[in-house]
Amino acid sequence: MTTILLTGFDPFGGERTNPSWEAVRRLDGQKLSDGSHIVAAQLPCEFGTALAVLKDRIVQSGAEIVICIGQAGGRAELSLERVAINVDDARIPDNAGAQPIDAAIVEQGPVGYFSSLPIKAIVQSLRDNGIPAAVSQTAGTYVCNHVFYGLMHLAASRPSLRHAGFVHIPYLPEQALAYPGAPSMSLQMTMDGLLIMLETTLSATGDMRITGGSTH
Amino acid sequence: MTTILLTGFDPFGGERTNPSWEAVRRLDGQKLSDGSHIVAAQLPCEFGTALAVLKDRIVQSGAEIVICIGQAGGRAELSLERVAINVDDARIPDNAGAQPIDAAIVEQGPVGYFSSLPIKAIVQSLRDNGIPAAVSQTAGTYVCNHVFYGLMHLAASRPSLRHAGFVHIPYLPEQALAYPGAPSMSLQMTMDGLLIMLETTLSATGDMRITGGSTH
Amino acid sequence: MTTILLTGFDPFGGERTNPSWEAVRRLDGQKLSDGSHIVAAQLPCEFGTALAVLKDRIVQSGAEIVICIGQAGGRAELSLERVAINVDDARIPDNAGAQPIDAAIVEQGPVGYFSSLPIKAIVQSLRDNGIPAAVSQTAGTYVCNHVFYGLMHLAASRPSLRHAGFVHIPYLPEQALAYPGAPSMSLQMTMDGLLIMLETTLSATGDMRITGGSTH
Amino acid sequence: MTTILLTGFDPFGGERTNPSWEAVRRLDGQKLSDGSHIVAAQLPCEFGTALAVLKDRIVQSGAEIVICIGQAGGRAELSLERVAINVDDARIPDNAGAQPIDAAIVEQGPVGYFSSLPIKAIVQSLRDNGIPAAVSQTAGTYVCNHVFYGLMHLAASRPSLRHAGFVHIPYLPEQALAYPGAPSMSLQMTMDGLLIMLETTLSATGDMRITGGSTH
Repeated sequence: MTTILLTGFDPFGGERTNPSWEAVRRLDGQKLSDGSHIVAAQLPCEFGTALAVLKDRIVQSGAEIVICIGQAGGRAELSLERVAINVDDARIPDNAGAQPIDAAIVEQGPVGYFSSLPIKAIVQSLRDNGIPAAVSQTAGTYVCNHVFYGLMHLAASRPSLRHAGFVHIPYLPEQALAYPGAPSMSLQMTMDGLLIMLETTLSATGDMRITGGSTH
Repeated sequence: MTTILLTGFDPFGGERTNPSWEAVRRLDGQKLSDGSHIVAAQLPCEFGTALAVLKDRIVQSGAEIVICIGQAGGRAELSLERVAINVDDARIPDNAGAQPIDAAIVEQGPVGYFSSLPIKAIVQSLRDNGIPAAVSQTAGTYVCNHVFYGLMHLAASRPSLRHAGFVHIPYLPEQALAYPGAPSMSLQMTMDGLLIMLETTLSATGDMRITGGSTH
Repeated sequence: MTTILLTGFDPFGGERTNPSWEAVRRLDGQKLSDGSHIVAAQLPCEFGTALAVLKDRIVQSGAEIVICIGQAGGRAELSLERVAINVDDARIPDNAGAQPIDAAIVEQGPVGYFSSLPIKAIVQSLRDNGIPAAVSQTAGTYVCNHVFYGLMHLAASRPSLRHAGFVHIPYLPEQALAYPGAPSMSLQMTMDGLLIMLETTLSATGDMRITGGSTH
Repeated sequence: MTTILLTGFDPFGGERTNPSWEAVRRLDGQKLSDGSHIVAAQLPCEFGTALAVLKDRIVQSGAEIVICIGQAGGRAELSLERVAINVDDARIPDNAGAQPIDAAIVEQGPVGYFSSLPIKAIVQSLRDNGIPAAVSQTAGTYVCNHVFYGLMHLAASRPSLRHAGFVHIPYLPEQALAYPGAPSMSLQMTMDGLLIMLETTLSATGDMRITGGSTH
């Protein structure tokens, strides 16, 4: 019976809600089919602080699976992030007003870390269930990538952290009102998708060999 | 107590489903708050035949409000169509293999007809309920516009047809799987949106004066 | 030997340039292969005034072909507009601060007018010359559509006006800098495209029967 | 006086041309303002072989600056790639029919390499010259990323290779005809942009501290 930590973010960029926290908080305490259970945690949308809070929650919960969820306004699909990169480059200030440019997240850290989720199998399961999903080749260079990189850096020295990764999710429909033409996904479908992702992660033995690539 | 005719289309363009009929058929027989009720009808995705079927259903049902619904793959919002134009120009063949080019729908008919739905008020109601919606300035030149134009031409000589119009709806999520990056809307939200549209139409006295325009 | 009036607009919406006038003013006085010549005129981006200026220029020039050009930021292709509709619905104020909503351009005027340019043949010629081009089913509801509708209304009662229509053009590359990801077209290609359009218009006898339609 | 190697690719994915080679081959032999000169080379769009050819050309030319150029159909800007990742994941087969999935480019190689071009300064120079340009956070997982990663891996052990990187460029206008709505860039502007990029690289001492980040 595994403890699974799911995190969502505070609203940022002028938004009043963040679909990642809306979805994650509703899954707090939920049990999966093998008896594993979900612990939900909220992260501030702040460089540095977000990672500090994440580490605390990982230690507190003793989670063996940690998946951070973030909003990707403009995307239409659940995006399974493939890789985190060692750079902060903020197009807009974070919620504490910080706007790092081309700063390393971990000094002397490796350039990147790959997700240790079975991202291809997850995408396949989601699509088998009628939920738009895709592998993404970039988590950006903002707080989401920052947290993703920090998480994978921690996991690299912490074998008990069996699976770790990051998933970007679309706007909620009510958010998309502010962005004419922007795609969205219902809260229910997002939550269903996160549960399918967890079931797939729990049962996977290695990832599937199916393409999830991009030509550019 | 008004009879409302809602129509949806057969699948076309290689699809196995059409969200317009999926939503509309589930609303068949449903009552609105003033006691009005919905009659659902399916139209073939065929030039000419679609209009013949529509006219039959209007006569049979005695509907005073007729709204045709069609799929607009790639759009993220419920699209309240403003205007129908008197031309068929098919980029792909219809379900009977016809592919008219620059043909008048009604010989000597006017170039266009405006919707007689309160489209601005409907968009506002939908958005007030958290449902992405917008006025659209073009219904295209395919079977959707063909039906829309034919409907409005009929309404022009049939005063009992108090409100008539056309609404384009997004892909369902399961359809969007085939189009990477394409937006979608859940069936439930689409159905909720259609009901809100009808309630607004029933209670409206004229349309709202709010912008729904495009610079191009 | 025909006189051809080409018009471009003032910058609007916070822009400092308008590609339509940049292209058109450089073509002033230019001769076509049959000896016809171009007269360029600038229109203010103002409802009403733009049409008044246009009518003056038509009378002054004695033009038999009148094509108005406007900017369509976000489009990647030269857009041959098919239809003008009888409504002003301004999403943003014009350059004089006016923002009409759902106002008729011509009281009691028809709902729409079709372009009298050979739009299919023009698109074909442009593409044969390697220039991205397409038929567009909507010119919007702003000053561009306003001018297009007013022009076609005038042409309807003025047989000497043999061809009239409207073409939307993309941003210039330097404009697109302000809109990350927005497509653009070089000034040279835009100008080349306008000349090809005129040569095709001068030599066309009727339009081509090729599709230029949209499913929605 | 520096030797600069610029590479472009063969056409792929059913295309008959590749804008990267069209631009690069026309710059072969060209001198920069400090007397440096350009050597152009064509790479096959094949995993493995492309890298072998690249290494040969680097050795032959003795280049100290190596920049590989590739086509990114659908992008509107010159894309300065920030990071290469150690994975081949081909959505479509390469020109030799190979379609690797989740294969390391260099076994035991690091997850990623950052470009050693002054990408921020280059973007700024390009934009100062009216050319749409942006930093990109992903070069995909196809042959472009494969070559980019292999190049940076080589550069890591070859100090004489002062600057190395990868740039994605848009379709040419004539290519974009096949993709309705797709953005494009003229060959001349692409070539001008590559020269500006080289001048900036030659004169830069470190990169600029300006944002080029993405929130996701």
